[in-house]
Amino acid sequence: MTLDVERLLTELTLEEKAALTSGSSFWYTAPVERLGIPSIMVSDGPHGLRAQPGTGDHVGLGGSVPATCFPTASAIASSWDPGLLQRVGAALAQEARATNLSVILGPGVNMKRSPLCGRNFEYLSEDPYLAGELAVGIVDGIQSCGVGTSLKHYAANNQEEDRLRVDAQVDERTLREIYLPAFERVVTGAQPWTVMCSYNKVNGTSASENRWLLTTVLREEWGFEGLVVSDWGAVYHRVPATRAGLDLEMPPRLPRSPEEVAAAVRDGALDGDVLDDRVRAVLRLVSRGMHVLELDEAYDEEAHHALAREAAGDSVVLLENAGRLLPLSRGVRVGVVGEFARTPRFQGAGSSQVNPTRVDVALDEIGTVLDVVGFEPGYAVGPVAEGGSSDEELRSAAADLASRCDVVVVFLGLPPADESEGFDRTHMDLPASQLATLAAVAAANPNVVGVLVNGSTVLLDEVRPHTPALVEAWLGGQAAGGAIADVLCGATNPSGRLAESVPHRLEDTSSYLNFPGDSGIVRYGEGLYIGYRGYDKSRLDVAYPFGFGLSYTTFGYADADVTLSGSVEDGDLAARVEVTVTNQGSVDGAEVVQVYVRDVDSSVHRPVRELKGFAKAWLSAGSSQRVGIDLDQRAFSYWSDLLHRWVVEPGEFAIEVARHSRDIVETITVTVDGPSVAPPLRRESTLKEWLADPIGAEILRSVASADAGGLLADEDLVNVIGTMPMSTLAAFPGRGLDEDSLDALVAAYQERTGRREGTGTGPDEE
Amino acid sequence: MTLDVERLLTELTLEEKAALTSGSSFWYTAPVERLGIPSIMVSDGPHGLRAQPGTGDHVGLGGSVPATCFPTASAIASSWDPGLLQRVGAALAQEARATNLSVILGPGVNMKRSPLCGRNFEYLSEDPYLAGELAVGIVDGIQSCGVGTSLKHYAANNQEEDRLRVDAQVDERTLREIYLPAFERVVTGAQPWTVMCSYNKVNGTSASENRWLLTTVLREEWGFEGLVVSDWGAVYHRVPATRAGLDLEMPPRLPRSPEEVAAAVRDGALDGDVLDDRVRAVLRLVSRGMHVLELDEAYDEEAHHALAREAAGDSVVLLENAGRLLPLSRGVRVGVVGEFARTPRFQGAGSSQVNPTRVDVALDEIGTVLDVVGFEPGYAVGPVAEGGSSDEELRSAAADLASRCDVVVVFLGLPPADESEGFDRTHMDLPASQLATLAAVAAANPNVVGVLVNGSTVLLDEVRPHTPALVEAWLGGQAAGGAIADVLCGATNPSGRLAESVPHRLEDTSSYLNFPGDSGIVRYGEGLYIGYRGYDKSRLDVAYPFGFGLSYTTFGYADADVTLSGSVEDGDLAARVEVTVTNQGSVDGAEVVQVYVRDVDSSVHRPVRELKGFAKAWLSAGSSQRVGIDLDQRAFSYWSDLLHRWVVEPGEFAIEVARHSRDIVETITVTVDGPSVAPPLRRESTLKEWLADPIGAEILRSVASADAGGLLADEDLVNVIGTMPMSTLAAFPGRGLDEDSLDALVAAYQERTGRREGTGTGPDEE
Repeated sequence: MTLDVERLLTELTLEEKAALTSGSSFWYTAPVERLGIPSIMVSDGPHGLRAQPGTGDHVGLGGSVPATCFPTASAIASSWDPGLLQRVGAALAQEARATNLSVILGPGVNMKRSPLCGRNFEYLSEDPYLAGELAVGIVDGIQSCGVGTSLKHYAANNQEEDRLRVDAQVDERTLREIYLPAFERVVTGAQPWTVMCSYNKVNGTSASENRWLLTTVLREEWGFEGLVVSDWGAVYHRVPATRAGLDLEMPPRLPRSPEEVAAAVRDGALDGDVLDDRVRAVLRLVSRGMHVLELDEAYDEEAHHALAREAAGDSVVLLENAGRLLPLSRGVRVGVVGEFARTPRFQGAGSSQVNPTRVDVALDEIGTVLDVVGFEPGYAVGPVAEGGSSDEELRSAAADLASRCDVVVVFLGLPPADESEGFDRTHMDLPASQLATLAAVAAANPNVVGVLVNGSTVLLDEVRPHTPALVEAWLGGQAAGGAIADVLCGATNPSGRLAESVPHRLEDTSSYLNFPGDSGIVRYGEGLYIGYRGYDKSRLDVAYPFGFGLSYTTFGYADADVTLSGSVEDGDLAARVEVTVTNQGSVDGAEVVQVYVRDVDSSVHRPVRELKGFAKAWLSAGSSQRVGIDLDQRAFSYWSDLLHRWVVEPGEFAIEVARHSRDIVETITVTVDGPSVAPPLRRESTLKEWLADPIGAEILRSVASADAGGLLADEDLVNVIGTMPMSTLAAFPGRGLDEDSLDALVAAYQERTGRREGTGTGPDEE
Repeated sequence: MTLDVERLLTELTLEEKAALTSGSSFWYTAPVERLGIPSIMVSDGPHGLRAQPGTGDHVGLGGSVPATCFPTASAIASSWDPGLLQRVGAALAQEARATNLSVILGPGVNMKRSPLCGRNFEYLSEDPYLAGELAVGIVDGIQSCGVGTSLKHYAANNQEEDRLRVDAQVDERTLREIYLPAFERVVTGAQPWTVMCSYNKVNGTSASENRWLLTTVLREEWGFEGLVVSDWGAVYHRVPATRAGLDLEMPPRLPRSPEEVAAAVRDGALDGDVLDDRVRAVLRLVSRGMHVLELDEAYDEEAHHALAREAAGDSVVLLENAGRLLPLSRGVRVGVVGEFARTPRFQGAGSSQVNPTRVDVALDEIGTVLDVVGFEPGYAVGPVAEGGSSDEELRSAAADLASRCDVVVVFLGLPPADESEGFDRTHMDLPASQLATLAAVAAANPNVVGVLVNGSTVLLDEVRPHTPALVEAWLGGQAAGGAIADVLCGATNPSGRLAESVPHRLEDTSSYLNFPGDSGIVRYGEGLYIGYRGYDKSRLDVAYPFGFGLSYTTFGYADADVTLSGSVEDGDLAARVEVTVTNQGSVDGAEVVQVYVRDVDSSVHRPVRELKGFAKAWLSAGSSQRVGIDLDQRAFSYWSDLLHRWVVEPGEFAIEVARHSRDIVETITVTVDGPSVAPPLRRESTLKEWLADPIGAEILRSVASADAGGLLADEDLVNVIGTMPMSTLAAFPGRGLDEDSLDALVAAYQERTGRREGTGTGPDEE
């Protein structure tokens, strides 16, 4: 059952059309009953549904129907496994179908520009390529089951501070290379039913009114075929938003918004065809999603919980394992310390908060697989209740327990009040009381296994000296407790890799000087250099690098090889990277083979290396596999500020096959041919540019050498005046260059090369 | 003898007026002989004259008449002594008068945004306050002798790379607080006869065509009364430049430029009154400067050389003096190592290069005051001549000399090819051959005195382990050799302080990710945080901090005191800082008392501390002095992006009395009263902003508390939605806030406070 969209467009009144471009209530689109257009429901839920059927609660943040809480985005991204995200997506869709819910409002692919962003737990990575590949997985998973997604928050919504008003000032190259590619990848690769525009301004214009974002880039360049919905409350000027490309305002401002839209069409301020386009998008969405309204399905809560546990396990990153302390065996006397072991923290606060179907408690789960001799909370989370134990009492009891067992598992993490939608962190520290307890425990017993539960990265330099084994479990969803037990006992061999760097200091993050801005402005002054791009560029040591993660086995690499094909001119340059990976240990496990690309000699600044391919290989003990990874032309490209398009600069590129961003196993250098990216020489080109061009230099020397006192006679002088445009030098007396001889030079160059301004390769053709 | 400017304006033809706004040749203004308007000469020369009388050589970079080469800007800035710069300025003016030269093209007050800028040796500091105070000294010194100056390069010309075309993209607050204040200080405090606009673009518009820079800010806000001249070749569009505020194009494009200007007036593209303003500025300059043409004066070369020696000595910064190795005495067997000891490097290359009247050779000068037992070049500067010694031979001879003396003085420095106008450095390293020689010498004899000759800062972490005593002598002008000898023997007690930080690594400099840009753009992404502002904000250790410098004596501080006066409302807030400084040693010396200001709790990001006052106190051994330093309202102000003006935010300020930026002797906290800088609450203010305002919160609570399910009922919810504007929340269902109740809230607030948008304190009054 679908709608005949074009017929309906002829039958709808202006008022009905206007009404359709706002919802009818907090979570519902507007119906038109006389024409059989139903109302469909949308709902929060990147890692689980937060469905609130009915008329909507107070600002939409209250209770919701129970649903499986899968690992949060920062957790599941650490799996580096798009297939896993696809399976989770399919499960989410089944739960949506069971709730008669048509569109799930996720995934979020904003970049982790700063570790402080309060909503980082909802985002995937500091790297756009990784985020894009993973998000394609979840969107494909959901949409393949007939349920829609909403790719969010488009765009440059990388902080909570002043998020509804702040103007994110980002240059185009940085947008194109860092903040937009994950959106682009999902749009071109998975066509999400909807894209959600963000609250903030981008370069002066609210995302909801930003024609460049919503129409030029999203639809015209990327070919987006779906609907643009506002983030809830992100429409500030209803008619300009409609004009710019916003299809659906949520929640609706009733009755004002439809009235404004209709009036604008009536008085000519808004083109009726534009409104029709918006209505067309809404009707197409309803048409796609309305089948869900008829469903009467259930889903298998047990199976989903099991999937949640599997996903949480695959998301765990093993950061340390000195002396192979992990996995633990039966017979080892295990003490468990840390309030989070019995009071799970498994998701963040805000609009993504799920009402879970059940919650695993790590302490209980560990008890089922290991010999737990005791538990001590060790610290309080939040304010201590009256009559509760003091910090010192908790700490000393924990140390006492530690002294009575073989190994202590210490849970550490961020209190819920530290990370949430709506505000940013101001530091990256774990609570001092937890660190003190950890130190006390380690002093009593050095065999400490640290388990971290946090949605955003925390500083670990005060943790690692005390934790020979250290497990980053993130906010792993409702089954995280079981997954952690699986890892500790070895039922799961950890295979997660960091999707974001862990720095030594907050001040080392490149956005530090510009986060979160103030006075309504945040400048992305660090440009391209967020995450590992920043640490690599500034040659900063980090605590744990991007892509890092240990395993209970080890992997060997051999016979790395790269084959180039296609050509830059044809736009189909590609590289096939192959490497043989061997599981050298005695347990099964998975390795994430990572491929980084580095432009060896670029005429513009570029990151030291960028992730451009990866593959997760599951290898039984002792087995080998030839892993193949394909790079496309984009893997070699940068966004040219001169040419306003993606370009590949011919020359050498290093293809780095790596365990992680700071452990390059093999570097293979390839040479890419292609047209020069330099604009043709002209009057305004500098002396240095003329000398750097082989033909330009030859012409210049043939003229200048005739004149002993000429421009090139004195090498020191050339150095000093090399950055001067020829047109400037022509106005200086002497040295044998004047307006006429410059014209002759340019003419000679154009004749020799056939290149001139206006031939499509010049930068200044405006 | 002066010109009757207004009468001449009535007599000049349009063509003559147009001709006057371009020069007549490379260094000369255009004469109008029939009206008795002479041609006056201008000339390069921030640290000495580079006068080329006559018709001008090839691009103006050839030989010039001999003149005293005073210390370069980066050297003399280290004196922290505006009085010294004033005396040097007076000497420069005497030389100009003797050469019949009317305007000296300096000083340069561009900020040292990156240590890599090729022209840093011509600039004063990384701090705008220090640069401004010093530049006022030199401008006053020159102009008090009837010779003009040209304050340059206005503005944001902080690199050589692509300097004629690059667009410096700098936000207004950063311009106002960092890149413009030194210009502002000199204009308002010393009225330079001319200001020189720079080559580059500023936020999209070439400086020469930038009306905001040349007219709005320079003339209308600062009250500049002089002439704006182009940097040589900085005019790209003649008529728009004239319209924007450029008075004089240099060098002239003849005959094109005057023809273009005249034609523009004729066809109405350029207002005749505007051209008259430009001509008026030229005539006033000629009128002021023409008396110089008549002079037949000489200057005292010996006296100027002596002043150059004194200035160079006062510019030396003693970086290390372990075990009081310095000063050296007669009887100590001194070995001298380093080519720079016999082949002086004392100035940089480019348009500032002076043809010195004589040059002191450090090796000779040291020999006159100390017992030099031998000299070895130790390394080659530039390529080794055929038949010359190899690096190893030079090094081993140096080590051999070291082993045969008591103390080795090792000269180290940058080769001339490393720093020049026209190109930037790509690294901050001393040549490896010099470092190897230093290590070899130190291995043979640990009593090493390092002497540095460099115009831009170099990395010193590989130097300092080998140099118990270390002297930064900069490029100290023609008498630097004598000045260095003075310091080594104790005839001069070093009193210089670093006017720029010495970092551990180039990558630690905050502009690193954005220097020098490419594709015609450089983004000042680090904002305010250049120099020590960056290192302090990022809590980075440095090799030597801003303001640092040792002495042969020590100074004690006591009884620091701050007295506030005036008020923010009246614009005359001031603080008098007093402290008693005592020379605790047995030799005379000078201490530079530094005052930094820190806003303890600001609503916008601000540097940790900023230099806002300093005084150099000369103290004979054992004596004390009450040093007073006055701070004005600007010392407490920041540029508000919301209010588009300087504001002082009331509250606590820390006044730091310091030896240098990382050695705060005493902190005195003062409380400044004044009007709130927060805009009045309105519909678009966020819930958090309403709650932060005492009256707003009271009104809101009185309404919301009446509704148990209201907006404020749930603290967690308030955290999540706190950044939402009230107008957005009003559109959400429930929670007791709607459009009507919001209007009532705003009305109640306005009634209680009398503050509303449009009352002059709101930010969004457009």
